Amino acid sequence: MSVMGASTQNARETEQRARIIATAERLFREIGFQKTTVADIARELRMSPANVYRFFGAKSEINAAVARHLMNEVEQSAQSIAHGPGSAEQRLRALILSNEAMNAERYVADRKLHNMVEAALDENWPIISDHIDRIDAALEDVIRSGMESGEFAEGDAQLAARLVHAACIRYCHPRLMVECADRPTPTSAQMVEFCIAALRAGFRDLNRSASLSR
Amino acid sequence: MSVMGASTQNARETEQRARIIATAERLFREIGFQKTTVADIARELRMSPANVYRFFGAKSEINAAVARHLMNEVEQSAQSIAHGPGSAEQRLRALILSNEAMNAERYVADRKLHNMVEAALDENWPIISDHIDRIDAALEDVIRSGMESGEFAEGDAQLAARLVHAACIRYCHPRLMVECADRPTPTSAQMVEFCIAALRAGFRDLNRSASLSR
Repeated sequence: MSVMGASTQNARETEQRARIIATAERLFREIGFQKTTVADIARELRMSPANVYRFFGAKSEINAAVARHLMNEVEQSAQSIAHGPGSAEQRLRALILSNEAMNAERYVADRKLHNMVEAALDENWPIISDHIDRIDAALEDVIRSGMESGEFAEGDAQLAARLVHAACIRYCHPRLMVECADRPTPTSAQMVEFCIAALRAGFRDLNRSASLSR
Repeated sequence: MSVMGASTQNARETEQRARIIATAERLFREIGFQKTTVADIARELRMSPANVYRFFGAKSEINAAVARHLMNEVEQSAQSIAHGPGSAEQRLRALILSNEAMNAERYVADRKLHNMVEAALDENWPIISDHIDRIDAALEDVIRSGMESGEFAEGDAQLAARLVHAACIRYCHPRLMVECADRPTPTSAQMVEFCIAALRAGFRDLNRSASLSR
């Protein structure tokens, strides 16, 4: 096979994978991820189950790929806001609120997808941890740019990003979003203002000021 | 029955209730709350099950009473720190860290008690909501005193308390404490410093500054 042929082959395989993931996601939303079988996915795509298994060794790998795809869209949005226009404050607000809205659409409004995420949390898929890291990274980019421009006090941008993310966990963690549905306050918008106040003022970094007496 | 007799009777009933709750808690820790039956609790107390049912109409009411008792100890500690000595900052630190340590002992180290709390969260017992309100109230007392003394910027102490509590949720929510066990940072101590910075500097209150252009 020529180099050209190999790359066409790769493109075709990437496309097939993407079709399997998109079909699985649709079926997960329609009939639920537990009820969806590899045979269902293959039938929708007019493939043999054996062909699906060429791409994914087991149903659990399809689950993981769908979850990764859903989270990837949220991460892309966060990165695009982080590197888009506006002050650091404006981008931080937009990032947290867009993150909340996307997660709400995916995991709160859609009970069937929520079940998939519950399972992911229970099984502690590494994708959840990767997702947290990627949202942390987008937050860190915004906060570092704010520290550089003087909008925020100087400090450890990575630590600050993790603090903001942890402070906002009830607005992005699917299970908490459901649990906290009957406690409408504080809102995510209020929490962002609280975080911005700490970022502007600067906060004591325990790693750097261990010798401070207090 | 004389008034004296009625109050002795009440005292005796309160004591009996407390013994049932303490015995149930011990059995929940030893053999788990699902496996513990009303008959087990009665046997330990050398009572008849009928006598236990005089106090609690169903096993689920005993579960709720044990959960309430465990949470009450945490609330008492929070209140005693809130109204104890020290600056508002010092009390806020102590309250959050003591809350975390008590919850960790109860619900993370003790897997069997953790299962009871999981069930409570799933069934959305009103006691969970009451507990959140009571910790909010202790935080509010600390923050209000800090606002009054000038340590913290003036503002809505109730909103500020809810924000601090929500920001610290991963250090007090039993399920999150387990889930986040492999993500050691940010620590609760770091989060408290972050919150203190926002409280000192003051934060934009969206309820009060809706007309601010930004």
